[in-house]
This record gives sequence, C-alpha cells and structure tokens, in this order.
Amino acid sequence: MPRYKLTIEYDGGPFVGWQTQANGASVQSTLETALARFTGETPVVHGAGRTDAGVHAFGQVAHVDLERDWDADVLRRAINAHVRPLPVSVLVASAIDPDFHARFSATARHYLYRILNRRSPAALERGHVWWIPIALDAEAMQEGAHYLLGRHDFTTFRAVSCQSKSPVKTLDRLDVARYGDTIEIRAAARSFLHHQVRSMVGTLKLVGESKCRPADVGAALAACDRAACGPVAPAHGLYLVSVDYNSTR
Amino acid sequence: MPRYKLTIEYDGGPFVGWQTQANGASVQSTLETALARFTGETPVVHGAGRTDAGVHAFGQVAHVDLERDWDADVLRRAINAHVRPLPVSVLVASAIDPDFHARFSATARHYLYRILNRRSPAALERGHVWWIPIALDAEAMQEGAHYLLGRHDFTTFRAVSCQSKSPVKTLDRLDVARYGDTIEIRAAARSFLHHQVRSMVGTLKLVGESKCRPADVGAALAACDRAACGPVAPAHGLYLVSVDYNSTR
Repeated sequence: MPRYKLTIEYDGGPFVGWQTQANGASVQSTLETALARFTGETPVVHGAGRTDAGVHAFGQVAHVDLERDWDADVLRRAINAHVRPLPVSVLVASAIDPDFHARFSATARHYLYRILNRRSPAALERGHVWWIPIALDAEAMQEGAHYLLGRHDFTTFRAVSCQSKSPVKTLDRLDVARYGDTIEIRAAARSFLHHQVRSMVGTLKLVGESKCRPADVGAALAACDRAACGPVAPAHGLYLVSVDYNSTR
Repeated sequence: MPRYKLTIEYDGGPFVGWQTQANGASVQSTLETALARFTGETPVVHGAGRTDAGVHAFGQVAHVDLERDWDADVLRRAINAHVRPLPVSVLVASAIDPDFHARFSATARHYLYRILNRRSPAALERGHVWWIPIALDAEAMQEGAHYLLGRHDFTTFRAVSCQSKSPVKTLDRLDVARYGDTIEIRAAARSFLHHQVRSMVGTLKLVGESKCRPADVGAALAACDRAACGPVAPAHGLYLVSVDYNSTR
C-alpha cells in the first residue's frame, strides 16, 4: 500500500483536538472522512502530535496508507476540496517510504505560543492569542525559561492525564521575545509531555507579572511536583509550527 | 458636552459594516449600544471611514459626545466590557477638543489589503485574507500600481453606489510587497471613493496573473469607465489600518 505524508494547517477553534473522540469533530476524523469520500477506502490518519482542543497548527505532519496510487498533488487538492467548510488545509502531500511514521520517525517538534499583551482585548486575533492585559516583563520570562533548557524530569509541567512512559524529556529551545504588543514563546524538543508547553508558558507568565522570580522556575522544575506549576496557559494561544524528520525522509 | 476620540480594532466578519443598517449588527450600532448600556444616554458614534461588510480595522477612529464627563480610560474599559462577545476592541480613548471630527478632520487614511498566495486554501487566516492559488507576480503588480499614484479621476475604480461629490482623488501611496506566501498592498490617501481600494486591488490581481500588463492599469485609469476595472477584490482581505489628523489634535 502506498504511504503518503501530509503537512497540514488548521485552526483548532472548532475541533475537539487532533485525535478522534466521541464528542465532536477532530482534525484526524475530518481528514479521514474527507479521504473516505473520494477514495471509497476507510484510511487511518496518523499524526505527529496529538494537539489538544483549540490548539492550532501551521505544520502538523501526518501519514496515511491508501490502497490505490495517487498523484500526490491530486491527493492534496482532493482532501482540501472535501474537508470544506472546516478550517483544515493540506499544504503539501508527498509519497513516502512505508517505514516513515509521522509520530515515531519525528526527530523534533516546534511549538509557538502567542500572547497579546496590551490593555484592550483582542478583536482581530481573538481565539488565536492569549490576551494578558498586565504588562509582562519578557526579559524576565526569558531568564526564567533558561532554567528549563536541557534534559530534566518535567513532572512539574506534566498533565495528570499524560500517558508518556517517562517524565524525562530534553528541551532544546525555549525562547521568549516581544514584538510590539505580542510576546512569542518558541519551544522545541524531540517530544513533549502532555500540556508541557502550556504549563511552562503559564509558569513563565507568573514571572512576567513579577509574581515569581526567574529562579523560581528552576525551583519549580526541581520540585518535580505538579503543585509547583503555574496555571496552564489556554489552548488557543498554542501552535504546532513544524515537525522535523531525518533528511533521508 | 465632552467629546471623546476612540481608536478601534474590529474583525469585520460578523458585521454588516461600520454604518448602522436595518439588516444586522454594525460596528457603529454595537458601540452605540454598549455606550447606552452604561451611560444611560443615546449617543451617536461618528467614524472616520465607513468600512463595508466584512472589512476589518486595526485602527478605525471615531468620536462621540457624552453628557457626563468620563475618565477616558474608564470609558475605554466600560465600552470593551459592554461590546462582548462581538469582536470589537477600543484600543485608546481620549478626551478631545469639540471641533475635532473623526471624519472631517482626517488628513489621511491608511489601508492594507492582504492576499494569501499559495496553492492550498487558508485555514488559520480564513476570513482575513484573499486566497489566490495562482502564483502572482508582485513586481508587475507594483509596476502597475505606480500608474495610479497622484491626483486623478478615479471613476474606473469607483462603486456605482459611491456618494462622493467628485471622482477626483489624490492617491499618496500604493505599494505591493511579497512576504513569503503573503502579498501586502498598502494604500494611503486623504480620502477614498467607495470600493476604490478593492477595485484597484482587483485590477492589480489581473496584472499579477499576467492577464494584463502593468501599463494597462494606466489605460484603465484614463478610460474613466467602470467597465475598465477588474473584478472588485473581496471585503475580507481589507483592513483600515489607521487615520491621520493634524498634530494639534
């Protein structure tokens, strides 16, 4: 069976998340239904990252096996025609080696968290940023972020529901930068625990508000205790930006 | 009566436009209703630009007279609390001289038109860009735009419904620039005719697709004939960015 790799953009707003659930449309089920409509098959779409309800993607990656051979660009257009009107768009489709697996072959995942930091609420970017009216100190947040880089037990920043075998992960990037009224937090790792990025962002927000010092982030990490985490940042500010694979893919 | 100047961001999607109409919520009526709720007055809000249904604003400007004196920032917060859940946000409120008029005192209006120029449809920016899958030549569009700069009879680029006394306007800026998959067209003038920006963008799109040459834009202008205009670009790609006033304001 030929395998196809898909790079997918979506607005997480109307979805229950990436993964298929009983309580509404997921991105995965939307793609599977679209594929079923024009292939007549019942394919399963495997994603690189199981984003939560409300989380967006600029470049989620998935793979799917189909019985028939397709021109990859015909496949891209057909999926995009059949997912309408839901806000999902396949940016690239390509035939790929059958040992490629969107989730298990991934070597890095890149996330972006966007904060709108101004006194007035978001109108144009509502549902796409976390609005925080209190002026945040982005430099202090960056200083706090440094304590989380590297290989650590991230139990503090892990959801109770997390199914990962180990809480130990290696965080390769956690950058905080201000662009006018927007604060962007960029994170990269081979893989993340459930709610890890949103938990780190919620904790850094406390530093930005001067409710915590930057060094407190290091203490929270060392505590290995969920109670030491700040409030989890809302889903709608988070974006899965891209997923890396070995260059041979 | 004290007069207040408001700078307003909105997502034009759910509105019938700036101006109050019988067939749905306008931005103007949303602001007036919000003001009425906490002032007990029935104020009229005057905007600088009467944006069409679906057109967005980063910085619309309006003025309103109230019977009571308000701390300007209390006013801003009260309006923002009362416009919810509609996507309108007052960014700045300030007390202003009673001879200030949002529309008649304006010395320049700045618009942005955003095109998403890639093969796959918009998901994250749906409703906020004009998606054009055919690769556009932004340099040719810029070359065509040059023919429209300066003082001209813009009858070709004027809606039939336009109520302006004269079709003669002075276009101070019309810049086309590509940033990755996005093409931004920025326009500035003291004032514009109805549908002028969207008519100019629709004509430049034909140049971008190589259906017209850049010089044809000059010929279309000289024709002073609505039939010489390209298709009017959709409203949801257009943004009122800002409005200028004399520095004494």
